[in-house]
Amino acid sequence: MANPAVRLASIALHLQSTGAGRSGGAGHSFDVSPRPELNQPMADIIRERKNASFDINLMQTFLDGGKDYTRAKEIAYQIIRRDPILLFDGGNDYDLTRPEAREKSMAQVRRFVEIYHSLKNPIQQKAFEVALSSYSESFGMRLYVHHMLFRNSIKMFASEEQKKRTTWVKDIDDFSVLGCFAMTELGHSSSLRDLEATATFDPATDSFILHSPTLTSTKWWIGMSGQAATHTVFLAQTIIKGKHCGLNWFMVPLRDRHTGRLFPGVTCGDIGAKAGRHGLDNGWIQLTQVRIPRDNMLMRWSQIDREGNITEPPNQALVYATLIAERLCTVDGTNNLCGQALTIATRYSCARRQGTSNQQIMDYQTHYVNLMPGVAGMYVLSLVDRCLWAYWDRMEELSRTNTDEYLQYLNDIHCVAAGTKASITWWGSEILERCRRAMGGHGFSAYSGIPSIIGDWGVFTTGGGDNFPLAQQTARYVLNCVNRSMQGKPNFGSAEYLKDIKVILEFNVCPADSVAAWLDLAILQKLFASLTVKLAMRIGQHLAPVAKKGQEKVEAVWNEHQLDVLRLSHLHTIHYLISLFTSSVSSLPSEYSSLKPILTKVGLTWALDMAVRDLDLMLEEEFVSAAQAQNLRVARNGICKELRNDVVPLMDAFGRPDFLLKSPLGRYDGDIYNAYFDTVTRAPDCYGPANYWSTEVEPLLTRVRP
Amino acid sequence: MANPAVRLASIALHLQSTGAGRSGGAGHSFDVSPRPELNQPMADIIRERKNASFDINLMQTFLDGGKDYTRAKEIAYQIIRRDPILLFDGGNDYDLTRPEAREKSMAQVRRFVEIYHSLKNPIQQKAFEVALSSYSESFGMRLYVHHMLFRNSIKMFASEEQKKRTTWVKDIDDFSVLGCFAMTELGHSSSLRDLEATATFDPATDSFILHSPTLTSTKWWIGMSGQAATHTVFLAQTIIKGKHCGLNWFMVPLRDRHTGRLFPGVTCGDIGAKAGRHGLDNGWIQLTQVRIPRDNMLMRWSQIDREGNITEPPNQALVYATLIAERLCTVDGTNNLCGQALTIATRYSCARRQGTSNQQIMDYQTHYVNLMPGVAGMYVLSLVDRCLWAYWDRMEELSRTNTDEYLQYLNDIHCVAAGTKASITWWGSEILERCRRAMGGHGFSAYSGIPSIIGDWGVFTTGGGDNFPLAQQTARYVLNCVNRSMQGKPNFGSAEYLKDIKVILEFNVCPADSVAAWLDLAILQKLFASLTVKLAMRIGQHLAPVAKKGQEKVEAVWNEHQLDVLRLSHLHTIHYLISLFTSSVSSLPSEYSSLKPILTKVGLTWALDMAVRDLDLMLEEEFVSAAQAQNLRVARNGICKELRNDVVPLMDAFGRPDFLLKSPLGRYDGDIYNAYFDTVTRAPDCYGPANYWSTEVEPLLTRVRP
Ligand SMILES: Cc1cc2nc3c(=O)[nH]c(=O)nc-3n(C[C@H](O)[C@H](O)[C@H](O)COP(=O)(O)OP(=O)(O)OC[C@H]3O[C@@H](n4cnc5c(N)ncnc54)[C@H](O)[C@@H]3O)c2cc1C
Ligand SMILES: Cc1cc2nc3c(=O)[nH]c(=O)nc-3n(C[C@H](O)[C@H](O)[C@H](O)COP(=O)(O)OP(=O)(O)OC[C@H]3O[C@@H](n4cnc5c(N)ncnc54)[C@H](O)[C@@H]3O)c2cc1C
Repeated sequence: MANPAVRLASIALHLQSTGAGRSGGAGHSFDVSPRPELNQPMADIIRERKNASFDINLMQTFLDGGKDYTRAKEIAYQIIRRDPILLFDGGNDYDLTRPEAREKSMAQVRRFVEIYHSLKNPIQQKAFEVALSSYSESFGMRLYVHHMLFRNSIKMFASEEQKKRTTWVKDIDDFSVLGCFAMTELGHSSSLRDLEATATFDPATDSFILHSPTLTSTKWWIGMSGQAATHTVFLAQTIIKGKHCGLNWFMVPLRDRHTGRLFPGVTCGDIGAKAGRHGLDNGWIQLTQVRIPRDNMLMRWSQIDREGNITEPPNQALVYATLIAERLCTVDGTNNLCGQALTIATRYSCARRQGTSNQQIMDYQTHYVNLMPGVAGMYVLSLVDRCLWAYWDRMEELSRTNTDEYLQYLNDIHCVAAGTKASITWWGSEILERCRRAMGGHGFSAYSGIPSIIGDWGVFTTGGGDNFPLAQQTARYVLNCVNRSMQGKPNFGSAEYLKDIKVILEFNVCPADSVAAWLDLAILQKLFASLTVKLAMRIGQHLAPVAKKGQEKVEAVWNEHQLDVLRLSHLHTIHYLISLFTSSVSSLPSEYSSLKPILTKVGLTWALDMAVRDLDLMLEEEFVSAAQAQNLRVARNGICKELRNDVVPLMDAFGRPDFLLKSPLGRYDGDIYNAYFDTVTRAPDCYGPANYWSTEVEPLLTRVRP
Repeated sequence: MANPAVRLASIALHLQSTGAGRSGGAGHSFDVSPRPELNQPMADIIRERKNASFDINLMQTFLDGGKDYTRAKEIAYQIIRRDPILLFDGGNDYDLTRPEAREKSMAQVRRFVEIYHSLKNPIQQKAFEVALSSYSESFGMRLYVHHMLFRNSIKMFASEEQKKRTTWVKDIDDFSVLGCFAMTELGHSSSLRDLEATATFDPATDSFILHSPTLTSTKWWIGMSGQAATHTVFLAQTIIKGKHCGLNWFMVPLRDRHTGRLFPGVTCGDIGAKAGRHGLDNGWIQLTQVRIPRDNMLMRWSQIDREGNITEPPNQALVYATLIAERLCTVDGTNNLCGQALTIATRYSCARRQGTSNQQIMDYQTHYVNLMPGVAGMYVLSLVDRCLWAYWDRMEELSRTNTDEYLQYLNDIHCVAAGTKASITWWGSEILERCRRAMGGHGFSAYSGIPSIIGDWGVFTTGGGDNFPLAQQTARYVLNCVNRSMQGKPNFGSAEYLKDIKVILEFNVCPADSVAAWLDLAILQKLFASLTVKLAMRIGQHLAPVAKKGQEKVEAVWNEHQLDVLRLSHLHTIHYLISLFTSSVSSLPSEYSSLKPILTKVGLTWALDMAVRDLDLMLEEEFVSAAQAQNLRVARNGICKELRNDVVPLMDAFGRPDFLLKSPLGRYDGDIYNAYFDTVTRAPDCYGPANYWSTEVEPLLTRVRP
């Protein structure tokens, strides 16, 4: 090889050349001259579609789970697009004030209920609900709080007898009440044991007295409690005969349905300005000696009789089981918000040209390596989401038919939901930031659509359980499972693979000996299994010496290795998600078999990128050599570059119409500049003079100098 | 060693234990009962201060560069705190609408100018300007655009003769004009050669005709052009006798100072909703055949005479030299915004308790390892900032006294500014996200202060030059410098260290053989030097084979290694920043010598964290062994834990008063819950019933079911 200095010298000249002044780009004519039929950004986007390596329509059908749903989705979009109450005036909600946004999303709820009940076909109803939730995040959250949190609490925590006796479920389904879910307090949340609100049983009147004793016990963040909710389920420390008897849920009326006035003893307020979800009235609740009938305690798992005798729940975790579903929802939530952002950012990046040779910015390595794993991830999440809900449905059935087995799997699904939520939502934050960066300055414009997605997103990493504690719960579970496997005991669900722990332990040097060898999901899956077990062992070795020295010591050591602990949760989770994805693809219905190559490529792209993120660990564990590490990077970069050729088709297949994206820069037809300029000029106050000119500007410019 | 399975088994029990229901937390009483004098969060914060390992006041004096400035800062804060025009009504700007925010920041400018001119002491004037810019980001940006972009352009690009003949500079200093800086176009920005706006010389009338020929040529994002600016400097392709003669700057009047009406041929509009900086009227400008005198071209580096003969600038880069200062400003900008966020997040994390033993959340490893490098970084940036501006001042002098030397260093300072801007602002985004996450749900509340900081921040990674192209320019420079060094040629400024390239190349195995050995800034500095050179060689080897095959081939290979290229810029930059920091600390004035230990610790914390981020590369380059890598992590985690004991004092020393932080959760005294609750209840519309109850809620709840 030649001397590196000489090599560098010879390239220096090329790198220095700056090129002469070229004539300015393709440009867009003004409206005054006839607009060219196809200008550059549009032509670029058309070409991207023409080059698709797969059938976009077939993919859409596959993602929708069949043609019926695709059709229902299209109708749903039409309904929204044509309804002035559902539609955002001006095409987006970026210029709404907070009161306007709160009112608009409530108007959408009201209109939604009217239309929903007029649609008799359940598929159409579902498609409509999904479409509107995706169009208006704040509407979606209102509905989510009412349905997923409030209704599910009743369904899961009220006894059969209570459900029969009351009209609770019917009223919820009818929207003759609006409910919320009051768990979090100003002072505590992740550590539920420290909640302060109390429910004291009063045998004299057969009722509970609910009370918020301190400022920190104020229920906080409670969605819809700020302005709209008439009822809440309320989590409180149950006190019977002066004794704390654990946490229970209570049904509490908040507001008069006619006047909206608060009932005596109830204080609620709106939580004010937030990073996003401006249309949702998060709020706070203080109860001052509010009396409710004993029967308003939800009694499925724990019962209190007329005399104040309590039956404890078989497992305290049952009290939080609604949270499992809530966390599973973040998979679809990530797909929805990140999917929108990725559609916008990738279309823009194919329409935008910039740089020395005025190329599509999508062709920069930084662009495709940053964005393609996100695009691929949307597919992984779509497939995995189905598997996770199938798991949940099995659990719902078990809860009715086989409580023992239900309890056995409860731990696993809890940890699947917690770990997946943590890994996926942290990853999602990164993807959104990449989308923002991919758009340069225009990503800072609200009209790009990205800032509002990022704003709405902000809650995902903490709401429904903060990721830090959640990932630790999953890690704790994994440690126990590894341990069980070492003792030859069985594991369930996501941890079943640990039955082969001996084989896993033997897989301690990576066999991938070339770039091509890395292109193998099976190897990547094994890799994550191996890293999981290795890291569990490493953490175990640190904990072992203090194991018998008491809770405090164990916790101190645990805390010293918290970063590793989080990683353990992540490795286990990624292993599980890869395995779900792999089995989904291998059991693809035959009508979709032509999609197998692209789906496999997509899975590989995502998994390789995940692997690159753990390269330091692999190298530290001497699981890969330096050369293998470099090959892994080359494999990841290479597959991203290949997949980039399908980027527009891949995001097209999710079938999001322009009006849903609310982004002129993410337009289907690529006509970004005209649409962007139109949006900006139609926004309020575009043209001056500013109303403050005569009061603030002129006096400044013309003042007499002292 | 015992069998890992057994170890795991024995810890499992401890991990599973959930503890019995404890009585709820420290709690806060309501106003109705007397408020305990010292409740837990306040007591915690007091203790944090008491444990300071250094003299907080002395540190503040040091950071302020002397007692005079500290005093002037305090006065400046008083001025703001007491002035109803400067102060945000209600204590923050989170509830302002866009028109209100735009008006408020302009009112602040007007009031600022009045007060500024009344302060005769230049230190007091500077302190006032800095304090108000820090209090109101949008005010700061208005001033920045007028002073740093507009005024600096005149100063740097107008000829001495022009400056004498016109009242430009005086008018700017007097605020009898308000100026903006129009470079970016809707279609192009990073690639300035592709700008489309034209300035065509008309010899008949001795004037230029400025024109925006297409929609994409619209000047875009231009700060203050939306509503307030009366003038702009305008970058355009100069056309003389039909020939493109490069880019030049032109002085163009936009609006009538009395009426605010646009001059004929000028179209400007406001850019509308953005991710942040709501008080700044970013806008767009289209010129339609606007005629200005020939003399309005800024003629320092390039001249055009009456006959249209042009003198070319000695270096085209001179035309963008204002951008260097703009980029250097991001160091202080990062310190300001990230510093505020870190103050809030760390104080909150010391006042907040959560978890199994209800501990201060600051004590979680995830907390201190995530936040302490940020805290440390604020110190590194403070010290480094001074060095960078000293460099800039030397350059300003050279530009007047020694053009040759000026041009020699111009490349280096350009690359220092570009690389630093890229590395520091990408890092800053991460720090802000960590601050948000550290605050759990409350980080989503606007009143935490974090969302608005993140919103304002959004532009840093792209404004003033997008980080992706900037970092590549620095990398290109580094490659050339490495090359020059290999040939025995000298390098300047940040690249001077490459003169020892032989020694650097020999330092290819890390000598740190224990955790303690890593605690050494000299080793870390060498490490970054070595990684820089190694990576430059690696990239060079890829480029060499195509070096003679033309620009296109070189670019293709460059693009295949773009991720490495960005990293090269980063490694070189971090090396430079560490070296600046080290020399600052070693030349500490004697009155501050007692601060040396804490400053050294701070530098180490930051540098070790930076090193951990490149662990994969070090392992791949076989620069460290697996054991060394693990030691490095342990060293980083350990020093973060140590430094955590000084976290509150360290952020205190920056002397930011509560009103500046606008965050009840970041209060100096730790009384977070009372203040937070007060803020929320004082915000508009806290208490209901909502104005939409009778139109949207009641009709929904009471409607007749079909
Ligand atoms: C709030 C705000 C205020 C501003 N104020 C002003 C102002 O007062 N005056 C003014 O003139 N301008 C101003 N700007 C414009 C700013 O300078 C530009 O946004 C910035 O230069 C980036 O250019 P762009 O937005 O055109 O992005 P582009 O250059 O189009 O970049 C888009 C994407 O492509 C990528 N890309 C481009 N080239 C390359 C490459 N070579 N390699 C890899 N990736 C590449 C970028 O990284 C980015 O991700 C402002 C912008 C904002 C957001
Ligand atoms: C927009 C929004 C809507 C919401 N809606 C509802 C709702 O409708 N109903 C409801 O009941 N709640 C709701 N919440 C509350 C949400 O569930 C809580 O914010 C969440 O559980 C986190 O709790 P916290 O905010 O108290 O954070 P904390 O638990 O106080 O955490 C603060 C910080 O400490 C860290 N931390 C805590 N424990 C540990 C640990 N063991 N190890 C390491 N770090 C730790 C956290 O990671 C975090 O960084 C909502 C929140 C938001 C933001």
